[in-house]
Amino acid sequence: MESRGLLHFLFILITTLLLFLFTKAWFNLIPNKSDLLNCSNYSPWCTSKNRFQSKSSNNLFYHSNEKSIQDHKTHIPHHPLDPLTIQEMNRAKSILLSHPPFTTSSSFTIHSLVLEEPEKALVLKWRKGDKLLPRKASIIALLHGQIHLLIIDLESNKVINHELRETKTGYPTMTIEDMNSAPWAPLSDANFNRTIVSRGVDLADLACLPLSTGWFGTKEEKRRLIKVQCYTMQGTVNFYMRPIEGLTVLLDMDTKQVVEITDLGIDIPIPKASNTDYRFFKQPNKPLMMRVMNPISIEQPKGPSFVIEDGHLVKWANWEFHLKPDPRAGVIISQARIRDSETGVLRNVMYKGLTSELFVPYMDPTDAWYFKTYMDAGEYGFGLQAMPLDPLNDCPRYARYMDGVFTASDGTPFIRSNMICVFESYAGDIAWRHAESPITGMEIREVRPKVNLVVRMAASVANYDYIVDWEFQMDGLIRVKVGLSGILMVKGTPYDNLNKVPNNEKLYGTILSENVVGVIHDHYVTFYLDMDVDGSDNSFVKVNLVRENTSPEEGSPRRSYLRADRNIAKTEKDAQIKLKLYEPSEFHVINPTKETRVGNPVGYKIVPGGTAASLLDHLDPPQKRGAFTNNQIWVTPYNRSEQWAGGLFVYQSHGEDTLAVWSEKDRPIENKDIVLWYTLGFHHIPCQEDFPIMPTVSSSFDLKPVNFFESNPILRMPPNLEKDLPICKAAASA
Amino acid sequence: MESRGLLHFLFILITTLLLFLFTKAWFNLIPNKSDLLNCSNYSPWCTSKNRFQSKSSNNLFYHSNEKSIQDHKTHIPHHPLDPLTIQEMNRAKSILLSHPPFTTSSSFTIHSLVLEEPEKALVLKWRKGDKLLPRKASIIALLHGQIHLLIIDLESNKVINHELRETKTGYPTMTIEDMNSAPWAPLSDANFNRTIVSRGVDLADLACLPLSTGWFGTKEEKRRLIKVQCYTMQGTVNFYMRPIEGLTVLLDMDTKQVVEITDLGIDIPIPKASNTDYRFFKQPNKPLMMRVMNPISIEQPKGPSFVIEDGHLVKWANWEFHLKPDPRAGVIISQARIRDSETGVLRNVMYKGLTSELFVPYMDPTDAWYFKTYMDAGEYGFGLQAMPLDPLNDCPRYARYMDGVFTASDGTPFIRSNMICVFESYAGDIAWRHAESPITGMEIREVRPKVNLVVRMAASVANYDYIVDWEFQMDGLIRVKVGLSGILMVKGTPYDNLNKVPNNEKLYGTILSENVVGVIHDHYVTFYLDMDVDGSDNSFVKVNLVRENTSPEEGSPRRSYLRADRNIAKTEKDAQIKLKLYEPSEFHVINPTKETRVGNPVGYKIVPGGTAASLLDHLDPPQKRGAFTNNQIWVTPYNRSEQWAGGLFVYQSHGEDTLAVWSEKDRPIENKDIVLWYTLGFHHIPCQEDFPIMPTVSSSFDLKPVNFFESNPILRMPPNLEKDLPICKAAASA
Repeated sequence: MESRGLLHFLFILITTLLLFLFTKAWFNLIPNKSDLLNCSNYSPWCTSKNRFQSKSSNNLFYHSNEKSIQDHKTHIPHHPLDPLTIQEMNRAKSILLSHPPFTTSSSFTIHSLVLEEPEKALVLKWRKGDKLLPRKASIIALLHGQIHLLIIDLESNKVINHELRETKTGYPTMTIEDMNSAPWAPLSDANFNRTIVSRGVDLADLACLPLSTGWFGTKEEKRRLIKVQCYTMQGTVNFYMRPIEGLTVLLDMDTKQVVEITDLGIDIPIPKASNTDYRFFKQPNKPLMMRVMNPISIEQPKGPSFVIEDGHLVKWANWEFHLKPDPRAGVIISQARIRDSETGVLRNVMYKGLTSELFVPYMDPTDAWYFKTYMDAGEYGFGLQAMPLDPLNDCPRYARYMDGVFTASDGTPFIRSNMICVFESYAGDIAWRHAESPITGMEIREVRPKVNLVVRMAASVANYDYIVDWEFQMDGLIRVKVGLSGILMVKGTPYDNLNKVPNNEKLYGTILSENVVGVIHDHYVTFYLDMDVDGSDNSFVKVNLVRENTSPEEGSPRRSYLRADRNIAKTEKDAQIKLKLYEPSEFHVINPTKETRVGNPVGYKIVPGGTAASLLDHLDPPQKRGAFTNNQIWVTPYNRSEQWAGGLFVYQSHGEDTLAVWSEKDRPIENKDIVLWYTLGFHHIPCQEDFPIMPTVSSSFDLKPVNFFESNPILRMPPNLEKDLPICKAAASA
Repeated sequence: MESRGLLHFLFILITTLLLFLFTKAWFNLIPNKSDLLNCSNYSPWCTSKNRFQSKSSNNLFYHSNEKSIQDHKTHIPHHPLDPLTIQEMNRAKSILLSHPPFTTSSSFTIHSLVLEEPEKALVLKWRKGDKLLPRKASIIALLHGQIHLLIIDLESNKVINHELRETKTGYPTMTIEDMNSAPWAPLSDANFNRTIVSRGVDLADLACLPLSTGWFGTKEEKRRLIKVQCYTMQGTVNFYMRPIEGLTVLLDMDTKQVVEITDLGIDIPIPKASNTDYRFFKQPNKPLMMRVMNPISIEQPKGPSFVIEDGHLVKWANWEFHLKPDPRAGVIISQARIRDSETGVLRNVMYKGLTSELFVPYMDPTDAWYFKTYMDAGEYGFGLQAMPLDPLNDCPRYARYMDGVFTASDGTPFIRSNMICVFESYAGDIAWRHAESPITGMEIREVRPKVNLVVRMAASVANYDYIVDWEFQMDGLIRVKVGLSGILMVKGTPYDNLNKVPNNEKLYGTILSENVVGVIHDHYVTFYLDMDVDGSDNSFVKVNLVRENTSPEEGSPRRSYLRADRNIAKTEKDAQIKLKLYEPSEFHVINPTKETRVGNPVGYKIVPGGTAASLLDHLDPPQKRGAFTNNQIWVTPYNRSEQWAGGLFVYQSHGEDTLAVWSEKDRPIENKDIVLWYTLGFHHIPCQEDFPIMPTVSSSFDLKPVNFFESNPILRMPPNLEKDLPICKAAASA
C-alpha cells in the first residue's frame, strides 16, 4: 500500500469511527446476521428498520404460507410443463454441487433454476395418463465472472449439457441477494455516509434501492455494475417520495465495492413526509367527504365454476390451459385450448403466452436519471417481484391462489405465497344482446351476461406495481390487460411551485407536491404469444383496409369505400408492424390448412387497444437494448432460444440479442410454427393525482377468434334468471 | 288519365286481385286499424305477424310498465333540466293546437317535443329550494313540407318563438310513425308484391325495414324519401339473416307513394333459416359442450350505495349528476360534479355529455348498399330506439331503472320503460395498490378494490344493438364505453363457399354462412362533452410529447428523451385533432384561472382508447354529411345551437351544418366556455363468430382528472374486509 493509499484508508477509518460515535442509530444500521437473513430472505428492496405494523390479514398470509410450505414439500409433477417442485429443485442443486467446477467452489451464484421444458412436439403429443416426460432442470449460474448454462436430467441425475457464455451480450437476471445486498454496500463508504448525514438524514432512516445501470458504453462493460440511490423513511413508509436527490453510488455488484459516488443534488431539499403515507390505519382521522359505500361483492354461493387440476391445469367453461408461475415472466399460460361448444372438440389456440420483457425509459438525461431505462423481467425478474396478493382486495372473494416456488442464489427453494390468483369476474357486462321493440309482435329481448375468467399477478418492481391479467372469455377472446399502480419514482427539486421555476429550466416532469417532480417516462410490456391456431403451423395475414375509389363506369353514387386486402406475410420483415390509425389493418394468425364450412381460413386476430410507441432515437443505447419496442407487432418462426425479447441476458446488454435483431434475419414465416409478439405501451406524464400513490391505469389487447368458429360460440348460453341468483344478507346483520 | 295509364292501372288491379286470391295470408297482411295501433305504437320495425312468445320476464316488464304510467302521470319537475313530464307534454301539445297554423290543420307531425333547457348561466346559478326556472317546451314540427321550430312557455301558456326553416339542409328525425308506416307502403304496389312472390316468399312472412336514404344529389332533394328493403321471417325471428337481396323500394315518406323499385337480385337465393334463431328456448335441445357455470352475481345486501333524488339527480360516492333520457341522444348527463374528498367542495367537471351523432357507412358501392350510411341519432333517434333493458342480464341485480317519456308524432306522450339503468359495478379490479416484500420489515400490502357507477342504455337501431355506458369512477375518471352487439346487416350472395367465388368478384365482406355476406362497415359515435372544469371558462391544451435530442454539451450518455410541450389552442382550428401513435399528445381541458397548491392548472384530459378513423373521400357525399368524423377531437366555443354534430336536421342533409363546418369558423376557444367533441370509431370486417348474433365488441375513452385534485382522491378509501362481505347461499338451496 502506498503512503497515499494508507492516508486515504486512515481518513476513512477515522470518519467511520466519528460517525459511529455521533450517529445514534448505528446499531440499527449494521446488518447483523439475523437481520440480513430477515432482510435478505428474498426481498430485493431492503430497508434498515423493521418497525412497521402489518394489518391482521397479513397474519393470515403467514398461516397459509406455513401450511403451503408443507404442501409444496410433498408436491409431485403431473404435467410435462409443471414447474420444478421443491424436491426437484433440491435434487438439481445437489447434482450441480457434484459437477465441476461447482464441486470445488462456493462462490457461484444461481441466477435461474427452472424447468427445462420438453420439446414442444413431445408436449403436444403427451396425454394425461401417459408417463411424464423426462424432467430436466435448466440452470444459469455465474462463477468467476463467467456464465454457465447447464441442463440437468433429473432422472439420470446428470448434467447433460454445460455451456459457457460470453458476458459481453449481457448478464443474467440479478439474484435476490444481488438486489438485497447492493443497497447496504454504500454504507461501507465514509463519503457516502457523510453526505447522507450532511443532508440531515439520520442513517437509521435510510432506504436505498438497487437500480440497474443499463449500458451506455465501455463504462458499463466487463463487470456487473449497479447503481444505488437513497431515500429517507423519516416520518413515512413511502420513502419513495423523499428522495436524496442527485446522490448516485455506482457499485461493483460482485465485489460490493463502491466504484463511484456522484453527489450533485446537495442543494435540493428532501421533500416533506406529510401526506405521503398511504396505509389505511395511518390516514388522518377525519371523515372522507363522500357518500358511504355499501358492501359490494362478486358472489358465487355454489363456488367458482373452474377447477385447477393437478395444481396447474385450469378448466373453466370452454377453456383449458396450463398455468404456472415463473421467476422471470411472472405468469406463463401454456396450451390454451378452447372446446368448440357445438362439436365438443378441444382446439389449440396458443401454445405459450407470457410477459417477455418490460422496458421503462425515464425521460431525463441528467446524471441521476439518464440510466433509468429498466427492463424489469430480464434485470429484476418480473415473477420474483410478484408479491403475495391480498385476498378480497387484489382478487374477489371466490378467487383461488397459486404459490410460486423459486430459488435463492444458492439454489435453496422458497415459496412466494398467493402469487397468482384465478377468479371469475362478472362486472354487469353483456356478452351479447338483441332487442326488438317490446310492444310489437316481435317481443324479443335476448341478453346474455358476460362472465370471464381472470388470471392475475401483481409485480411490485420497487415502487411500481404492475397488474397483469389474462382474461379468458367464453366467446373465445383472450384479453391481456396491464394495470399500472403503485408509487412513482420521483425527483427532488428546489421548487415548491411551478410558478417559481425559471422559464428556461427543465423539470423533465410535473411538480406533484412541494419539491417533488414526477418524471415523464414510458412503459412497454412485450408479450410472447406462441399461437398454435388449430395446430402449430400457422401464417400471419395482414388484412389491410384500403380506400377504393369508385370508377365512373360503376355508376355508384358513392365515391369511395373500404375494401379488405389480405396479405400473407412471407418472411419476418413483412410482419414488422407499426400501427397506424389512418392505415388500418387487422392482424390474423391463421391456419392455412384449415377452413370453415364456407371456406374461410380459421384464425385468431390480435386486436390492439390504446397503446403508445417508443419515440427514442434508435441509436440511443436504451432504445438499442429495448429495440423490441421498435414495432408494436412482430412475428418470428418458433425457436426455443427466442423467448425473451431483450435477449436471454439483459442485464447490461448492448442490444445484440433482441427480438429486433432476430427479426432482421427475415426468416420465412408462412405456414410455419410462428410466434406473435405484441408490445403494449404507455406514456406517463405524471399528475398530482398520482401522489402519493397512483390510481390504476390500464390498457389491454385482445386475441380474438376470427372465423375460428363456424358461428357465435356462445349462442346457446343460457340467460340469468332470478332463481339462479344467490340469496344474500349483510354480514353485519349476521 | 291516358289510355296507357288506364291499361297500367288495370294491370295492377288485376294482379292485385290475383294475389288476393292466391295468397293465403292476405288477411294477415292488410294492416287493419287495431293492428296498426298495435304495430305503430312506437315501434319502428314493423313485421306482419304477431306470433312470438315472450319469456316470462317480459310480463314483469308489462306490469312495471302499467304501474310506471300511473307514476309518470303524477310526476312534477324538480330540477331545471328535468325532462318534460306527461302533463307538460300534453300542455305543450294543446298550446300548439291553439296556435296558427296548427289550429286549422291536422296534417302536421311532431318530430320532437322536448324540454327547452334554460340558459346555462341560469341553471348554474339555480340551487335546490330555489323556484324552478320557467319551464319551456321546444317543438319541431313538419307541416306542408315546412319545418316549424317553436318554443312554448309552459307558464304563460304561449308560443314565445316560432321559426320556419328551409328543408334544404335536411329534415328532422323521423317520427316513429314514419318508420312504422314506410315498411307497409310497398305492399300497395303490385310489382313489389309480384317480385316478392316470384322469389318464393310468402307475403305473410315479409319483414321490411325503413332505411334512411342519405343524400347523394338532386335525387334526394325537395321531398322526404326513404328506402325499404325486405326479408323473410319464414322459419326464424332472425329475418335479418334472410335478405331478399337487391330489392329496394324508394318511397316518398309523406305521401307513402312508391317512387321507384329496383329489383336486381332476382338470382340471389334467400339464405336458409336454420341456425339463425338466437332465442334461448328455440335452441336445439342438446348439451352445450362446456363445463357447467355456477351462478355468479354482484351482491349488495345493504342495497346500492347511490340514490336518485327527485327522479333524476344521481348521487354516488363523490359524484353527483343529473341524468335524463332523451329521444335523440339517448342518455344525457348534466352537471356532473365531483366532491373533493378532502375539502368537501363539490366541483364542476362537465355541464353536459351526450351521444351527439352516429355515422355508420357500409362499404359496398352497389345499388342496394351504397346509401347505407346511417346517422342513427339524427335520422332515427338514438333514444327512441333504446329498448327496455332486461333485468339481471342487461344490468346486474341491484340496478335501478329509469323510464323515458317521449311523444308520438301527434304529440301524445308514451313511456319507454326501463330505458336506462344505473348500477354499481365491481369486477374484482384494483383501484390502487402497493406491496412491499411481505417478508422484510416493510410488511406493506395496501390494496383498494375498484367499484364504479354505471349508467347504461342499449339502443336497438333495427338489427344493431349499441350499448352506451357512462362509467363514473371514484378517482374522478369518467369512462364512456360503447358496446356493439345485435345482428349484422347482411347481404345475399349466390355463393355458399368462399372457394367458389371467382377471383375478380368483389364480395364487399365475409361469407358468414351459406349465401350470407357480412358487409364491411364502420361505426362512429360522436360525443358532445361540454366540459366545465371548475367553472365554465376553460382552455384546451395539447401536451405534445416530443423527442428531444441531447446536445454534446449536456454530456448525457443518453441521445434522446421525450419532453412535454404545452400548447394552448387559441382557435378552433388549433383543436382539430387527428390522433397519431408516433406524434403522441395528451389533450387537457384546463381552467386557466385556477391552479393547484403547487401551481399546476387544474384540468381534465381526454384519453382515447382503441379507435378507428374514417378513410372515406372527404368529397364523398356520406363523408361530407359525416364530416364530424374527419377528426377524432374537436373543440368549439359553447353555442346553444351546436349540439348535434351532423346538424340539427340530419335526415337527407347535405353536410352544410356539421361540426366540421362550425369548426372552420375558427372562433377563439381560449379561456372560453368550450365544448369538447370526441369520436369513437370501429372498423368492422364481419367474421363467422358474428353469425347469427354478435358477441359484444367494446371500446371506450376516458375523461380523467389531471392536476384537478391536489393528490390521489381515493387515498383514504377503506379496503375490503371479510366482515364487510355479504353472507350468501345458493338460491336453489333455499
